[in-house]
Amino acid sequence: MVKENEPCGGLEWKMNMPDGSSKVLEPECISESRYCRALKGLLARFVSKIWGFIRKAWNLGVAEPKKVMHCLKVGMALSLVSLFYYMRPLYDGVGGNAMWAVMTVVVVFEYTVGATLCKCVNRAIGTFLAGALGLGVHWIACQSGEKFEPIILQASVFLLAAAATFSRFIPSIKARFDYGAMIFILTFSLVSVSGYRVEKLFELAHHRLSTIAIGASICILTSMLFCPVWAGSQLHNLIKNNMEKLADSLDGCVADYFKNDTKKSQDSNKVMLGYKCVLNSKATEESLANFARWEPTHGGFNFGHPWIEYLKIGASLRSCAYFIEALNASINSDQTAPDFLKDHFSKFCIKLSSDASAVMKELAVVISTMTKSSKIDLMIEEMNSAVQQLQDAMKSLSKQPIASTVTEKEYGIATIVEIVPLVTASSLLMEIVARTENIAKAVNGLAEKAEFRVESDTKTKESQNQKVITEEHEGDKKTMMTLEKV
Amino acid sequence: MVKENEPCGGLEWKMNMPDGSSKVLEPECISESRYCRALKGLLARFVSKIWGFIRKAWNLGVAEPKKVMHCLKVGMALSLVSLFYYMRPLYDGVGGNAMWAVMTVVVVFEYTVGATLCKCVNRAIGTFLAGALGLGVHWIACQSGEKFEPIILQASVFLLAAAATFSRFIPSIKARFDYGAMIFILTFSLVSVSGYRVEKLFELAHHRLSTIAIGASICILTSMLFCPVWAGSQLHNLIKNNMEKLADSLDGCVADYFKNDTKKSQDSNKVMLGYKCVLNSKATEESLANFARWEPTHGGFNFGHPWIEYLKIGASLRSCAYFIEALNASINSDQTAPDFLKDHFSKFCIKLSSDASAVMKELAVVISTMTKSSKIDLMIEEMNSAVQQLQDAMKSLSKQPIASTVTEKEYGIATIVEIVPLVTASSLLMEIVARTENIAKAVNGLAEKAEFRVESDTKTKESQNQKVITEEHEGDKKTMMTLEKV
Repeated sequence: MVKENEPCGGLEWKMNMPDGSSKVLEPECISESRYCRALKGLLARFVSKIWGFIRKAWNLGVAEPKKVMHCLKVGMALSLVSLFYYMRPLYDGVGGNAMWAVMTVVVVFEYTVGATLCKCVNRAIGTFLAGALGLGVHWIACQSGEKFEPIILQASVFLLAAAATFSRFIPSIKARFDYGAMIFILTFSLVSVSGYRVEKLFELAHHRLSTIAIGASICILTSMLFCPVWAGSQLHNLIKNNMEKLADSLDGCVADYFKNDTKKSQDSNKVMLGYKCVLNSKATEESLANFARWEPTHGGFNFGHPWIEYLKIGASLRSCAYFIEALNASINSDQTAPDFLKDHFSKFCIKLSSDASAVMKELAVVISTMTKSSKIDLMIEEMNSAVQQLQDAMKSLSKQPIASTVTEKEYGIATIVEIVPLVTASSLLMEIVARTENIAKAVNGLAEKAEFRVESDTKTKESQNQKVITEEHEGDKKTMMTLEKV
Repeated sequence: MVKENEPCGGLEWKMNMPDGSSKVLEPECISESRYCRALKGLLARFVSKIWGFIRKAWNLGVAEPKKVMHCLKVGMALSLVSLFYYMRPLYDGVGGNAMWAVMTVVVVFEYTVGATLCKCVNRAIGTFLAGALGLGVHWIACQSGEKFEPIILQASVFLLAAAATFSRFIPSIKARFDYGAMIFILTFSLVSVSGYRVEKLFELAHHRLSTIAIGASICILTSMLFCPVWAGSQLHNLIKNNMEKLADSLDGCVADYFKNDTKKSQDSNKVMLGYKCVLNSKATEESLANFARWEPTHGGFNFGHPWIEYLKIGASLRSCAYFIEALNASINSDQTAPDFLKDHFSKFCIKLSSDASAVMKELAVVISTMTKSSKIDLMIEEMNSAVQQLQDAMKSLSKQPIASTVTEKEYGIATIVEIVPLVTASSLLMEIVARTENIAKAVNGLAEKAEFRVESDTKTKESQNQKVITEEHEGDKKTMMTLEKV
């Protein structure tokens, strides 16, 4: 009962007045309960938001334990470097400059070994160059009298900062030395500016460099010794996974279209949309390739592994993914071909797509095992003969008995509109085959440059390889241009 | 003559021996000249490389004077902040901590105002939070005796650094507060670690914060007052330009196919490949949108301008660009349709593509003028009727007199293969039309949320707008999902 008469618990507070009347104490109570509820609502929303956030973070941690490991590594490196403060002998060595070691660790420690190395080298070079230049400018300024000293220092800071900032816009420098240029500006400004006050400039520079060296070496050691995450391996796996996703998407799309399965499971839908990852992975690939070249030999990758070839493979994968997107859209369009036509095409299209995806999967195996495949050329040949079969099927369309099953229809008129979706899908499939061959060429380029192992039967292989290389195909021009040297 | 007898200038050095014989001094001379030439070659290559680099930099500067301006601004901000060192009264105020002001300027000054503001706010919040927390932890550590002090400090550094590092992996935090999290780790480590040595911790924190505030405000003022580069305007223009490029590419592709112009000029080729920019602009768009929301009112954009709508438009542009890529490839393929079929289709396809590109250009005008267009709905209708015409043309293909022009061919058999490229191109064009409508919807969403001005004839507009919104089309699912709320 009480619960039904909300708010305020259904109770009424009455004040009996001296004159016999009574006053119900309602409004205050109601407003109080309103506040209460608003506060509770706010609190509940806040708690649920925090809870959602924690759950998301937990899921992230479970999905990628390497990232959790990275966090622990950062904590460890910082604890290590802060030992310099707590241990008398170490502290006396570098003094208050130990701050720079802490700063170096925080700023330089990145997720992958390559990124950490890249930043360490950048920081070291930038600091050294700027320090040397700063000392030089400071010496010149000192020689030119007290009046000109601040002017020369100011002008040099202005000019060098502007020049170094400009260099950061140049793509080739931005890719490799962006951080170094920033550190250069920072150190140069600090040295030339504090040189005006601090007398012991050389000592300062020496301490600065040695503390940075300490911080950097702690970072490098921690990131390389405990569960290292190599940018190179990440790139290698990314490309391999993307290739597999593309193959699965292709299979999924075509099967989905021809099998007329009305109720798609969420899983199969997810597989079908795997190609979307490929469309969006360009930036990741580029930054990984950029970091990978700083990394020393690890796993099967030497220093100087041709990482740039992975970018070419990535580009050819993307150019294939565009067509899968187009195929997916044309398959999902309203226009559907009549069933008898679908049946006629179905086996050829499914054969073609499964051949193409088999080639992609084989290429993924080539990459993951770093072994040249002896089957791949045969598979490409088979794929090409499947293209021929599909073309023949199109040619024979009006001669074959299928036509006779629809004698009631005015054949020539009806079909041209009806076959539009099928023809589109087929010619997109053929384009996908051409792109798959480009992927094979790109993988071949990698296999040659990285000197992948050869499978047992070497001799048949050699001649086939030659063939793949000399086969010419129109396709993604970019990939082709970069492949011309192969 | 001498020149012909290289190396060594053709001169022979002979030594006449006492016994009358003579010895030619050749090998040493040759090797010397070899060194000379190698050195010269090296020098020449070095000079030409430097020269090429300078030329590239010069071209970059000429092409984008705003970037040069940015460099001068960085130089100016640094000169301004270094005045703190040179002016006694200022220096006495903040002391040696002026270093932090210099550091702030170098690290925080970015190309766009939004990025600078984002970093400033991140730095301020990160420093403040970490400073407060650091002082708290330091106080607790002090209370717990000399033995536990370093343990508590170390443990807190380890835990908070790990937690803050982990938060940088969470996408929503990475997008907005990545830099802040890094500064948090940095400041917390420095405060809790140096607290063990430096006695005047409060004073340190106060100086640190005030110098960062000085550096940050110099950055913000410089970047906002002198030739500001707004991330918002950049994003706005990028989307507008991409739309125009897409329209030009579409026109170029179709015209190129049907006009049979064998000698393409380089210019037209460049225009045709404009869509490739659209394919690769996702990362740029996202970072610009991310920075734009930090920016105050500028130009026609208020604080709280719906920048996220631009990302939706960008996504719909990209999904259209995939089809232009497919169209481009199918147009460049070996298979060509016979001329009589091409002529039959040509006017419909060219009409359709020019309608679609006109719609895109009109949408670009809508964006650039921030004014809703009164023509756009009519144009979309016209585009859709062009689709209908193309479909009718396909249907009528076998009935029309065109068929009679090829009576010598066995019509039904020959054409199905022959029309493949045409049918593919046409159905890709129709998909492009559907995507163009999606772009129109996305632009409409922006126009509604950003309250674009309405052109004079408001009434006819309203009803038409309603129509565009309610029209349903299958298309890019992502764009559709985000548009459902419109």
